[in-house]
Amino acid sequence: MTTPTRRPKRAPVPRVPPEIIRPFSLAEYTDRMMRVQSVLADRDVAALVVCDPANLYYLTGYNAWSFYTPQCLVVPAEGAPHLFARAMDAQGAHYTAALGPHHVHGYPEHLIHRPDLHPFDWIAEQAVDLGVLPSGPGSRILVELDSHFFSARGYIALQEGLGGVAIADSAELVNWVRLVKSPAEQDMLRYAGQIAEHTMLTALGAIEAGRRQNDIVADIQHAQTAGLEGIGGDYPAIVPMLPTGATAGTPHLTWSDRVMRYGEAATIELAGVYQRYHAPLARTVSLGKPPAHLVDCAAAVSEGYAALAEELRPGRTSHDVHTAFTTAINRHGLSKESRIGYSIGIGYPPDWGERTVSLRTGSETVLQAGMAFHVILGMWMDGWGYETSEPVLITEHGPERLTSVPGGLTIKT
Amino acid sequence: MTTPTRRPKRAPVPRVPPEIIRPFSLAEYTDRMMRVQSVLADRDVAALVVCDPANLYYLTGYNAWSFYTPQCLVVPAEGAPHLFARAMDAQGAHYTAALGPHHVHGYPEHLIHRPDLHPFDWIAEQAVDLGVLPSGPGSRILVELDSHFFSARGYIALQEGLGGVAIADSAELVNWVRLVKSPAEQDMLRYAGQIAEHTMLTALGAIEAGRRQNDIVADIQHAQTAGLEGIGGDYPAIVPMLPTGATAGTPHLTWSDRVMRYGEAATIELAGVYQRYHAPLARTVSLGKPPAHLVDCAAAVSEGYAALAEELRPGRTSHDVHTAFTTAINRHGLSKESRIGYSIGIGYPPDWGERTVSLRTGSETVLQAGMAFHVILGMWMDGWGYETSEPVLITEHGPERLTSVPGGLTIKT
Repeated sequence: MTTPTRRPKRAPVPRVPPEIIRPFSLAEYTDRMMRVQSVLADRDVAALVVCDPANLYYLTGYNAWSFYTPQCLVVPAEGAPHLFARAMDAQGAHYTAALGPHHVHGYPEHLIHRPDLHPFDWIAEQAVDLGVLPSGPGSRILVELDSHFFSARGYIALQEGLGGVAIADSAELVNWVRLVKSPAEQDMLRYAGQIAEHTMLTALGAIEAGRRQNDIVADIQHAQTAGLEGIGGDYPAIVPMLPTGATAGTPHLTWSDRVMRYGEAATIELAGVYQRYHAPLARTVSLGKPPAHLVDCAAAVSEGYAALAEELRPGRTSHDVHTAFTTAINRHGLSKESRIGYSIGIGYPPDWGERTVSLRTGSETVLQAGMAFHVILGMWMDGWGYETSEPVLITEHGPERLTSVPGGLTIKT
Repeated sequence: MTTPTRRPKRAPVPRVPPEIIRPFSLAEYTDRMMRVQSVLADRDVAALVVCDPANLYYLTGYNAWSFYTPQCLVVPAEGAPHLFARAMDAQGAHYTAALGPHHVHGYPEHLIHRPDLHPFDWIAEQAVDLGVLPSGPGSRILVELDSHFFSARGYIALQEGLGGVAIADSAELVNWVRLVKSPAEQDMLRYAGQIAEHTMLTALGAIEAGRRQNDIVADIQHAQTAGLEGIGGDYPAIVPMLPTGATAGTPHLTWSDRVMRYGEAATIELAGVYQRYHAPLARTVSLGKPPAHLVDCAAAVSEGYAALAEELRPGRTSHDVHTAFTTAINRHGLSKESRIGYSIGIGYPPDWGERTVSLRTGSETVLQAGMAFHVILGMWMDGWGYETSEPVLITEHGPERLTSVPGGLTIKT
């Protein structure tokens, strides 16, 4: 696919230093790419432009905090893919990505943060030049139009640079290919689960009245990154969450330096991460005797979890899982409209969900062995909240919990 | 601007619990908004759609890890702004944002991760309904088209929902308004500097031969979040970076669980963060006697820093700063093409830069008192690297360093 006659001056390709360990075999990357390319061929599109860092990592192993500047992998329906990134990141891509030596292209530094030029102007031109993206009307490509880190300006530049190519949304094509995990990926999730368990046990020990929220989170982060002997922790896609007291009813507010008080409850949501694979985990802690409404809610949710776990097996649908939960909690006068879980695997900030299957009413995805979910049961009330979760792997025999942290409300007296 | 007759059923507005502390006065938010609206009036546009979480925080105080789902602030040229976010995040917005009680709107949960519907369909409809965004040809609005977390699909939905309104790129309008910091913001940066200093001193103590990279990073993260007495740390927009050994020449690769070896060098890049304000800081450490090329490079860069610091004062340009540095290092046979710094202040993942001023050749921005920069001198060589940085505030009298960590190469023997 390269046209060497037009690009005589190639930069020397760096050798991969021994520091770099690629987490999967080359055969696994080849298999992943083939599955994506077979979808492209089925849909009769010339190429797919991948921008989601989790998808870049899945398809090539490329792993760096470079997603704050434009970058993408262009996957043609046939032939080898090409990665485009900022010039200073090209070497890191050579080191970590399972790509041919001349399939990584660095755009010049002067394109960064310019009102008049955009890196995707350059990427479009180069990709057409290389023959990996078509130009002009009559061809059709897919682009990850709803991916984080592909901006509207990048889209406009790509559209103009390709002169009338029909651009359609990929609708998370690669994310859907990621849904069923290989045995090697399942092991990554199990390691992540071990880190999650270690981190949650650290958190449950660290949280107590009189300590500042940020000091508790500091302990959580230390455990997340230190991980365990032989299983070093990686960074989570989302910082630890610690909604507390009256703000426990409010998801997604981050910590403050307020001191925890005796008598209040807090929810801890964190993830264990190994080689970018995430096992998220949440628990609610009461510092002192919990109010009756919290105890009752926790008991109802535990019953709901037991009911939904029966449905977490091949052949059931995500709708079935949600229904089993809501049926159980309805008996206790509780209801839950929003989703109770989502598919997990590789994660990059700002989200560790795969953005494919949601466990919710009306979702008819049939569960298969090898899928993994974060089952998260968040009851956000007015002025208080209860949240508990489990990362689970679907096996032939039902759900495999990735941690063995005891469920239910944790009471510290 | 609201049309109450069409929206009779308003949700009750929650009272802000005492846990929530807003970091700036209401008068400061009013002033910020007025400065943005005066630019809108000057440019004769009807409204601005703000998606960058740092800009949302700057203009309203809204602060939550909710940016992984679509959200935006619509700022009309005149009148009060409206915030649109996922329904479950609306309460957190009520708590943290300096917005009128009926100026926060939560979109329904069923719009999350759907191939057929998008939250921006709903946002466009509601905003037109409220009269805060125009509809149809003949009007012009600005949108943050290159902001993180505003996807191409969001753009397409907004475009269709507004039926032919002319949409132009805001070209980081709000980011430019953020460039000169108020006295209250300067204090936030000074607090962040204190945390950065504490964290770097922790890091320099933690890094040693025989320890795993991830264990060193765990100590860094603990210090970042714990912060100091009375100054609790906030989360950084970028995880700590620790490029080491042969990968020290490669920016943006994150840590591994490899053990540090005697005789190798590593760069530590981190930030102290207080109330979302960032003071980034980098140092290079040699474990054992450093090679001559590293010592020489460090000395040349220190000379370059001294030269550029003379230019960090009101009236000089960012071009002048870059030139002073490159002139100094050229004398030592070194060169640096890419930028040597950028404007800082509020940061959210994935970047703590403000995406406005870059200290580079050809940039004619004139420095003013109240601007703040991360001056970062990264020399990425083939197989090794040297990096050092300073967060500085421009004052009438020249640069004010936000930390007092000693400069130059750190040697641990």
